[in-house]
Amino acid sequence: MLTGRLRTNREEFRNITAEVEKAVRESGVQEGVCLVYCPHTTAGLTINENADPDVVSDMLFALDALFPDRPEYRHMEGNTTAHLKASFVGSSVSVPIAGGKLALGVWQGIYFCEFDGPRTRSYTVTVQAV
Amino acid sequence: MLTGRLRTNREEFRNITAEVEKAVRESGVQEGVCLVYCPHTTAGLTINENADPDVVSDMLFALDALFPDRPEYRHMEGNTTAHLKASFVGSSVSVPIAGGKLALGVWQGIYFCEFDGPRTRSYTVTVQAV
Amino acid sequence: MLTGRLRTNREEFRNITAEVEKAVRESGVQEGVCLVYCPHTTAGLTINENADPDVVSDMLFALDALFPDRPEYRHMEGNTTAHLKASFVGSSVSVPIAGGKLALGVWQGIYFCEFDGPRTRSYTVTVQAV
Repeated sequence: MLTGRLRTNREEFRNITAEVEKAVRESGVQEGVCLVYCPHTTAGLTINENADPDVVSDMLFALDALFPDRPEYRHMEGNTTAHLKASFVGSSVSVPIAGGKLALGVWQGIYFCEFDGPRTRSYTVTVQAV
Repeated sequence: MLTGRLRTNREEFRNITAEVEKAVRESGVQEGVCLVYCPHTTAGLTINENADPDVVSDMLFALDALFPDRPEYRHMEGNTTAHLKASFVGSSVSVPIAGGKLALGVWQGIYFCEFDGPRTRSYTVTVQAV
Repeated sequence: MLTGRLRTNREEFRNITAEVEKAVRESGVQEGVCLVYCPHTTAGLTINENADPDVVSDMLFALDALFPDRPEYRHMEGNTTAHLKASFVGSSVSVPIAGGKLALGVWQGIYFCEFDGPRTRSYTVTVQAV
């Protein structure tokens, strides 16, 4: 299990595909599964388009519209919407490994999703052979 | 593969972290991946904050607001919203194992999410070594 | 890693359980985990009810209500809602294998979710033994 670290902005999708690919390459595993895991409750991971950066900004905009702050929320830290967004994207992504590389689609990238930054965050990469 | 069972309330997030941790410990696996799986279509699993119980009640409140019952729904059982919430959280969570323990973040817990109880439910735990 | 292919309609949930089950059977793995992966950014995978087809049509209806097209979206292809729906369901599902078969619940099926068809799509199946 390798650990990656990053310093985030307030809210952003950070492309970490190159770092995960490097961890797979260094593991030497040719065929298997790569689990990327986020140990935080107001951040998550998702796989989405790596080509047009407008997709990511549209997604952040849409998640704000989907999860407005509501007066009924009681969580004392006041960041319930960040917890909701984290559960929306999920805390991990699993990607198959083929020929020693992540078997991502052509347009896919792996994104670390910060919903309550800026913070120093981490994620882990676990590589399994089949 | 181990099976856990629980009796749920109408709608709730039940913290099952201790039970999953026990299954990992008993497997003897030191480094690997733990897959927790929900075999139901109106319940699911998620990872979120284990400290302030208001996070969980806020999430249930928000999911009700997100998925109102709609007159257009045709599913004869009348529990379409529960199916939607189950797809929102997802049917499994994967957590890395390090040093013989779940590599959860400090504030993370694993929750069985009931959206259409009360029922007798189950989940399975599969432990893989790397 | 096996690859499945399908020709989709504009928007649909296609039940691919039989194809995934066949890949598991051919692998000979008795106990393990099956990862089904979608390499597209406007399609995804989910596990939901396989009995009443109204569940699937209700879900497509609900996702349209949840993610209306918004004038603020800037993605040039105009299919931001499809990217959002793909992140909602997620790009993979993991299912335990027991006794040489997918350990799905009685009412569960694996669905390939097309949100921006019609297209020729693919998915991969990776079978891991424990």
